[in-house]
Amino acid sequence: MNAPNTPYRPVLTDAARPATFQVRALDESGAPRETAIAGEHPLTLYIDKHELLTIMTLGAAPEALAIGYLRNQRLIERIEDVVSVQVVCVENEAALTTRHWLTDLEEKTAMRTKTTGCGQSTVFGELMDEIDAVRLPAGATLSQSTLYALLERVRGHDTIYKQAGAVHGCALATNNPVETSASEILYFVEDVGRHNAVDAIAGMMWLDRIEGGDKIFYTTGRLTSEMVIKAAQMEIPFLVSRSGLTQMGYEIAQKVGMTMIGRATGKHYLLFTGAERFRSDA
Amino acid sequence: MNAPNTPYRPVLTDAARPATFQVRALDESGAPRETAIAGEHPLTLYIDKHELLTIMTLGAAPEALAIGYLRNQRLIERIEDVVSVQVVCVENEAALTTRHWLTDLEEKTAMRTKTTGCGQSTVFGELMDEIDAVRLPAGATLSQSTLYALLERVRGHDTIYKQAGAVHGCALATNNPVETSASEILYFVEDVGRHNAVDAIAGMMWLDRIEGGDKIFYTTGRLTSEMVIKAAQMEIPFLVSRSGLTQMGYEIAQKVGMTMIGRATGKHYLLFTGAERFRSDA
Repeated sequence: MNAPNTPYRPVLTDAARPATFQVRALDESGAPRETAIAGEHPLTLYIDKHELLTIMTLGAAPEALAIGYLRNQRLIERIEDVVSVQVVCVENEAALTTRHWLTDLEEKTAMRTKTTGCGQSTVFGELMDEIDAVRLPAGATLSQSTLYALLERVRGHDTIYKQAGAVHGCALATNNPVETSASEILYFVEDVGRHNAVDAIAGMMWLDRIEGGDKIFYTTGRLTSEMVIKAAQMEIPFLVSRSGLTQMGYEIAQKVGMTMIGRATGKHYLLFTGAERFRSDA
Repeated sequence: MNAPNTPYRPVLTDAARPATFQVRALDESGAPRETAIAGEHPLTLYIDKHELLTIMTLGAAPEALAIGYLRNQRLIERIEDVVSVQVVCVENEAALTTRHWLTDLEEKTAMRTKTTGCGQSTVFGELMDEIDAVRLPAGATLSQSTLYALLERVRGHDTIYKQAGAVHGCALATNNPVETSASEILYFVEDVGRHNAVDAIAGMMWLDRIEGGDKIFYTTGRLTSEMVIKAAQMEIPFLVSRSGLTQMGYEIAQKVGMTMIGRATGKHYLLFTGAERFRSDA
């Protein structure tokens, strides 16, 4: 039940799984060591009783992941069309129910299958077409001090990575062009797959009606074409990574006019694209 | 044309792409820096003129990647069934022709699509069923000195990662239980996607008729369920990673009796599973 003045929110379970598990390993001296490893669970996604796919996930935000996946794959157009997301952990299933009972799902997924098949790829051709339509906010700027504030926030964030490794983290943070010495992390999601973490944040943004134009997207992962495309789809003008980037990520960022910063840690970074939006501290 | 005593080899193009590209970035002082970034190209896979999927790849070994992908997805059963693999870089296409003109491809991919859809997942359910049938060589052992020799070889290997980052590397190396102070790298493949690097090695193993039982598989990437499943499919008893592991990777390795070693660098490592196959130096 939604109150009259709060935005519509589908009915969601809250089925987060424990993120880490303790196992015993032997170190190089043969001594036993209790060590944390990252969780990993199959999550089979059903939409209106249609089995769609199985995603391997850490399981920290399965409902947002299901919604964000469907958003980023362009299978659902509005959050208002999602009636409910029910995650049943025992069966590793997420069942998503839509308002209008998606009649064209077969058609949509058939087309997708035809162009991309299954497996390691995503809907590359379609996404590239869509990129042409992306318009990032023209006047958005990022100052060096805001970037440093964000990196400091990320550094201080309590993460599964610090405990167990084997996960990638993504964050959505504020970018205030007036108060440049601060950047607040709105969401921080870690997952065994980089794209799951991005999709989960896309789902949270939909649920909370958060726009991307005045935000910064941070990821520990590499800036490949898919990461840049997903940030562009969310209309986020600033993409920051602790890691490096690929050629296609670089080219797409240039094309859409996104400011892309790699190798960002502490007080170091490399500004790769969109320097016109970046303001160095005096 | 194959000589009478050499194993059959399909007709292959040799269309490797440049692995790194130079771009100019600005560092934190605003100074320009020429820096290498990893290549990334879409490669659309056609099998007997059937469009299968688009893989994003570094492009270092596209022919082996195409073959290994089809091997690991169980779409082709024998290397002898592959007549040719032609990669046309301008069009970013790999066209694979089979001997018998795969008549059941539609059926196979339809089943796959039904169970997994497209996108982030792979054919999880089917792979898990197959895992039950995997038999790793019962008597295979790995000595600590061989592990150290392998890590030293990997450290000295010239890599794209050292130049440009943003890639993962996989290696197949020898494991000689008598001459334990040596381990030779047979293949070393880097790619923007971890699974591409594994698939390309699977393709090379098929092409060269290399068995996995007396080998070690090394990866810079995390040991998730998919990595462990693919190593098990290649019947490799030893899996070594510089990174950490996930719970499902751990469980599958335990189930198939694989020796899995994580956080391996220099003289340090953690032995997670299959300790009965491991021989510590006296």
